[in-house]
Amino acid sequence: MKSLHQLARRKALTGLPGPRIVPRQTLSTRLWQRSFTATAMAPSQQLPDLDASKLTVTKTSTPKELQKPQDLVFGKTFTDHMLTVEWTASDGWHAPRIIPYQNLSLDPSTCVFHYAFECFEGMKAYKDNNGGIRLFRPNKNMERLNKSSSRIALPTVDGEALTKLIGDFVKLDSRFIPDARGYSLYLRPTMIGTQKTLGVGPPGSALLFVIASPVGPYYPTGFKAISLEATDYAVRAWPGGVGDKKLGANYAPCIKPQLEAASRGFQQNLWLFGEEEYVTEVGTMNLFIALKNKETGQKELITAPLDGTILEGVTRDSVLALARERLEPKGWAISERKIRMSDVAEAAQEGKMIEVFGAGTAAIVSPVRNISYRGKLVDCGLKENEEAGEIALQMKSWIEGIQYGDEKHPWSYVI
Amino acid sequence: MKSLHQLARRKALTGLPGPRIVPRQTLSTRLWQRSFTATAMAPSQQLPDLDASKLTVTKTSTPKELQKPQDLVFGKTFTDHMLTVEWTASDGWHAPRIIPYQNLSLDPSTCVFHYAFECFEGMKAYKDNNGGIRLFRPNKNMERLNKSSSRIALPTVDGEALTKLIGDFVKLDSRFIPDARGYSLYLRPTMIGTQKTLGVGPPGSALLFVIASPVGPYYPTGFKAISLEATDYAVRAWPGGVGDKKLGANYAPCIKPQLEAASRGFQQNLWLFGEEEYVTEVGTMNLFIALKNKETGQKELITAPLDGTILEGVTRDSVLALARERLEPKGWAISERKIRMSDVAEAAQEGKMIEVFGAGTAAIVSPVRNISYRGKLVDCGLKENEEAGEIALQMKSWIEGIQYGDEKHPWSYVI
Repeated sequence: MKSLHQLARRKALTGLPGPRIVPRQTLSTRLWQRSFTATAMAPSQQLPDLDASKLTVTKTSTPKELQKPQDLVFGKTFTDHMLTVEWTASDGWHAPRIIPYQNLSLDPSTCVFHYAFECFEGMKAYKDNNGGIRLFRPNKNMERLNKSSSRIALPTVDGEALTKLIGDFVKLDSRFIPDARGYSLYLRPTMIGTQKTLGVGPPGSALLFVIASPVGPYYPTGFKAISLEATDYAVRAWPGGVGDKKLGANYAPCIKPQLEAASRGFQQNLWLFGEEEYVTEVGTMNLFIALKNKETGQKELITAPLDGTILEGVTRDSVLALARERLEPKGWAISERKIRMSDVAEAAQEGKMIEVFGAGTAAIVSPVRNISYRGKLVDCGLKENEEAGEIALQMKSWIEGIQYGDEKHPWSYVI
Repeated sequence: MKSLHQLARRKALTGLPGPRIVPRQTLSTRLWQRSFTATAMAPSQQLPDLDASKLTVTKTSTPKELQKPQDLVFGKTFTDHMLTVEWTASDGWHAPRIIPYQNLSLDPSTCVFHYAFECFEGMKAYKDNNGGIRLFRPNKNMERLNKSSSRIALPTVDGEALTKLIGDFVKLDSRFIPDARGYSLYLRPTMIGTQKTLGVGPPGSALLFVIASPVGPYYPTGFKAISLEATDYAVRAWPGGVGDKKLGANYAPCIKPQLEAASRGFQQNLWLFGEEEYVTEVGTMNLFIALKNKETGQKELITAPLDGTILEGVTRDSVLALARERLEPKGWAISERKIRMSDVAEAAQEGKMIEVFGAGTAAIVSPVRNISYRGKLVDCGLKENEEAGEIALQMKSWIEGIQYGDEKHPWSYVI
């Protein structure tokens, strides 16, 4: 059992303002300074926050040629410009700049290369039928960016100002957004620590940048259900760890298990947790399981709860909200709860599985055909000639409708 | 209980050659390629390994002025040059180069900025009394570098060749090593993924670089015992995770708890693990506890076992080996075993603590005066006017004697 003070301290870890350092033992200050930088300050509340009105724009003199939409590969090509904002512990957020897309030039001792001071967001801009450009729930990305950055002693930022700046950036490069359903501009806000020192401590400087990559539909020829391998020999996240933050640190360690799964023919791996083998999340998505509840007989849509071990996906949140609004009245139970992999296997065996799908920004939903678990394939409920279940199809249609502005909805943010 | 196949797979995670991807389901290849790069190959065994004989050297035209030894700050200033080697999935390791110390120029989509494809080593070069230059157990650093890199799908490297190249680099910049006991040249071999894509997959290219920073003694005016705060509200590492690898990913998430400890006046935090609150490691060091065993009455030197949750410190290994060789015959028991923080607190209360010290490359040993645990200070056995215990003093003297070549020992590697 965790004591109250443990819970309070754990909670404080994600609180936005960080602690000030007031060393009691001045005799040992020198030691402290060796391992922690002199500017050992968490983001100050007095320093200038991001000011969108200070934006300067330097346009490229060599605009890129547009690629054919059908040739686009996720995250491979980028637009003409990038948005950058520097931060220093002494001066806070500097004036934002839109500049031609270009390399970053960094000293090899920069802390991002050594201690993974880096976090990011993934979001998209969509063209609607009237030529307007829309973001999808950008406030959720801004909230999460600040949770991520503050957890690793990087500064937080005014989310509204950043959203406005991202809008300016997207408008400038809007010619890169293909004008067709399923296409969008993937946006990658990224924050890195830029302090030049090998001392392990809070970075005294940081760089926030946003780059943009035009992308096509995840499933260009319609859904194709995927197969997962349940990973029980490696663990992605732990209570009290950082698995719920969008930190670079959560990604590199996942590649090897994903390659292992791939070597056996599975598209992604499914992370189990603990002796109970709770279902947590898929390689790069949250997971939803629809089944007939064994005890109540009710149809239930289940996803893992936000207990600190799973990413707080924006699509996850959207699926949950839409399910509560539009499926609950039709008799569905919507549950954020832990579910064991063995219970999923049992439901499959008893013919109680309805469907399973991943949820994330890239594909919105990814239907799952089966899951390899303890050497057996757990069937997830799709018919042989089916590539997606009803709920997945419904969710994609609802969410895409909002993203592209077909349905008027407060989640859609016109820039 | 973990099954045999779990253990085999977990073990395979750190094996050097990675799996090849042979997708069974060709229909879904396109999906796979979206999230994983086309060059999704683990380090091949056929490609050229690092070849030290291919080294080219470009000397700086603007040599730096040397700093006064007493002004050196850890990891702040660097020598004239750096060692760099590029790797590509198609061509293996390229020819190594020593070039003037300079910025890295990287595309903002480079995977090191987004997914923490980065690992490093920390080692030192020492000047001996005859003007010779020595490394300390470089083979251990090379082994660990390869364990770290392969765990995050970065390439492995021929450790002997890299040690030779580091030797060439250190000799070229040897004027930066202050000629006095306690001074050394801190070396930072670093490997980063350099692939330009936001797709989450194994990097198709990487950069290995080594930079060097002259450093002074950790305790310039003699030992100063430190105070620790036991962290029970956040977790550094867990079984099946990557806490035993020297990955950037393990560092950024530790800053906030260290700042928390600092805000209450403690120099470092001590990571506890699990409901049992096992003592694992200190902020940036392994931990050794010397006490009188409650049951046997024997003097016992204890450190946490290598169960995957603690860093496999080279200094830790050296302390253990020397203790087994030189303390065991004097009646000490040397134990790699789990110990609960509550047992440490109990031993303190019963007057059974002898001493506690951290062990790491920076300070060799760092004596600990007390540990804050559940709101109380656990006394670690030092007398009030003492700043270090006997074992810590002895270990520092033994290890330093080997590092500086006073004692002939196979651990010392003359370059």
